[in-house]
Amino acid sequence: MVHFVGVEAMIRLVEKTGVREFLSGLSQAIEDDFRRWPVFEKTPRIASHSSVGVIELMPTSDGNHYGFKYVNGHPKNMKEGLQTVTAFGVLSDVSTGYPVLVSEMTLLTALRTAATSAMAAKHLARPDSRCMAIIGNGAQSEFQALAFAAICGIDQIRLYDIDPTASLKCAANLAGHGLDITICTTAQDAVAGADIITTVTADKQYATILTDNMVGEGVHINAIGGDCPGKTELHKDILHRSQIFVEFTEQTRIEGEIQQLPENYPVTEMWQVITGTMPGRQSAKEITLFDSVGFAIEDFSALNFMRRQALSLGIFEELDLIADLADPRNLFGVLETKKDPIRRPQRPQAAA
Amino acid sequence: MVHFVGVEAMIRLVEKTGVREFLSGLSQAIEDDFRRWPVFEKTPRIASHSSVGVIELMPTSDGNHYGFKYVNGHPKNMKEGLQTVTAFGVLSDVSTGYPVLVSEMTLLTALRTAATSAMAAKHLARPDSRCMAIIGNGAQSEFQALAFAAICGIDQIRLYDIDPTASLKCAANLAGHGLDITICTTAQDAVAGADIITTVTADKQYATILTDNMVGEGVHINAIGGDCPGKTELHKDILHRSQIFVEFTEQTRIEGEIQQLPENYPVTEMWQVITGTMPGRQSAKEITLFDSVGFAIEDFSALNFMRRQALSLGIFEELDLIADLADPRNLFGVLETKKDPIRRPQRPQAAA
Repeated sequence: MVHFVGVEAMIRLVEKTGVREFLSGLSQAIEDDFRRWPVFEKTPRIASHSSVGVIELMPTSDGNHYGFKYVNGHPKNMKEGLQTVTAFGVLSDVSTGYPVLVSEMTLLTALRTAATSAMAAKHLARPDSRCMAIIGNGAQSEFQALAFAAICGIDQIRLYDIDPTASLKCAANLAGHGLDITICTTAQDAVAGADIITTVTADKQYATILTDNMVGEGVHINAIGGDCPGKTELHKDILHRSQIFVEFTEQTRIEGEIQQLPENYPVTEMWQVITGTMPGRQSAKEITLFDSVGFAIEDFSALNFMRRQALSLGIFEELDLIADLADPRNLFGVLETKKDPIRRPQRPQAAA
Repeated sequence: MVHFVGVEAMIRLVEKTGVREFLSGLSQAIEDDFRRWPVFEKTPRIASHSSVGVIELMPTSDGNHYGFKYVNGHPKNMKEGLQTVTAFGVLSDVSTGYPVLVSEMTLLTALRTAATSAMAAKHLARPDSRCMAIIGNGAQSEFQALAFAAICGIDQIRLYDIDPTASLKCAANLAGHGLDITICTTAQDAVAGADIITTVTADKQYATILTDNMVGEGVHINAIGGDCPGKTELHKDILHRSQIFVEFTEQTRIEGEIQQLPENYPVTEMWQVITGTMPGRQSAKEITLFDSVGFAIEDFSALNFMRRQALSLGIFEELDLIADLADPRNLFGVLETKKDPIRRPQRPQAAA
């Protein structure tokens, strides 16, 4: 049988593990996979565009497992009370081609995005960073705050959103998590004194969330919201003052902040920093920028990490997705079940 | 909730509908979609190859629904008692990006392949065809026989396989379906007197199942087994004597029998025949050849047809795949369920 982790199971899995512990383990799993970056099959996402949104498939493989994520992006959904982004994912065994896991990934993507951000900041931000500003306090903001708390030692959070109720929602959700939280009335106020600035706004257009004068020396910028063609958050002048780090250059040139820059503008891929083949931050005064758009390998890491958790905690269901036959040539026989017990007895699947 | 049709549900669905009725309805659904071919988004499959097999994603969209199929091909699986090919599929609503159906497609692919073959033969074979030879009596053979019986009026079947037990299995499965069945000891014997020749062998290599002298005038050849680079079944001389019809030229040039021919060799796409923009068979003496490799639109038609059947017969389960929130910005809130009932009450989904 194929294992299934639905939304309720994912919620129980994260609660039982602990959000911070889940984010820490996931961040480490992503780092481990970035460390072996060259073994992965890297394909640009396969997108199907319509006038109201996009549906994408993001596959990758490390030669042992194959994984893909289905994800949509429909900015108008929010007005209809629906999620802008929903996602689910599949893991398969490369040696047999059989799927082994189907999972919700709306929640898991939020977790992996935050875990990836914090992993990058662990390598790029000043080690003494304590205070993070979060510009944009929507669905991703709490995950960012907790990931940076768990992985980078952040304990002060400064919130700003053009909609004050979003900041209130974020602050309320973060209450009781041991963070010193300040709601600010301007973006300028939020970034004052911050060691790390996270931009994670949702407007699908060229916007300038940060202008050059707002960014002081030594800051690490974690730019999450600029993640598709035509959507950026940072003024170009900031990019020129920063050392820029990306996931997969080919994809980020199209989707990231650097779509504002010439095609040959130098950037460093995060896996090169992690493996020590390229430098990360080189001085306490440097501005570092992680221009993050999300990449298939992070989803792959998330599915594998989550699967291990789910199997060890026994939090999953079974999905009747594969016609496993006693005689594989006799597929037609399954339609005449009165004749014979044609399907193979289902074997419990060994843990990874 | 997302609807789920697993293997057991698919079996019940086909049994309850009747295999022939299911094949007839599906064949009509595929023809209806071929008739509006230009509205579909057509992408080559996205393949991930390993040393032992391939995993593919096959997406398409008609602007209202988006669908994709996951399918693997692992010839060595058979020796391990596993399926060479397994598949599942997803349908989504283009306007919201939300998935609406997850379904097994191992069985459904077998049905749609046979329904597509019979649909093509309905337009290409001589109308007085009664007798079909099937060379290769593996997992697809019974579906082919019943589809041609239901859609093209075939009532005589001549079976041949290099493994006689395969022919015996096929004949046993077809017993009681009102067909006159003959098991033959050579391919030459099987095709003698046949109006239609179906080749559906499984060897993954260039093979010559049919040589030129075996194919008489007026025959329709339904070539199913040559469906990937390096795998063909027909001698090139047969191709030169035939009018060749394909699903999607760009894909068939790579995967079909016509990979043996020059890149500009003239072929006709089936949708052109169905819409009357190009001729099909032009005389009773002509040899017509449907060089079939399987295309994403057929899977799309199959998922939509099957979904209508499943909803009308009430044969489906519900899958907890989408985190539908009361406040879409409050994704984090689902992790703190003790605070509030955060998830939206699940609404029953209207039929298509």
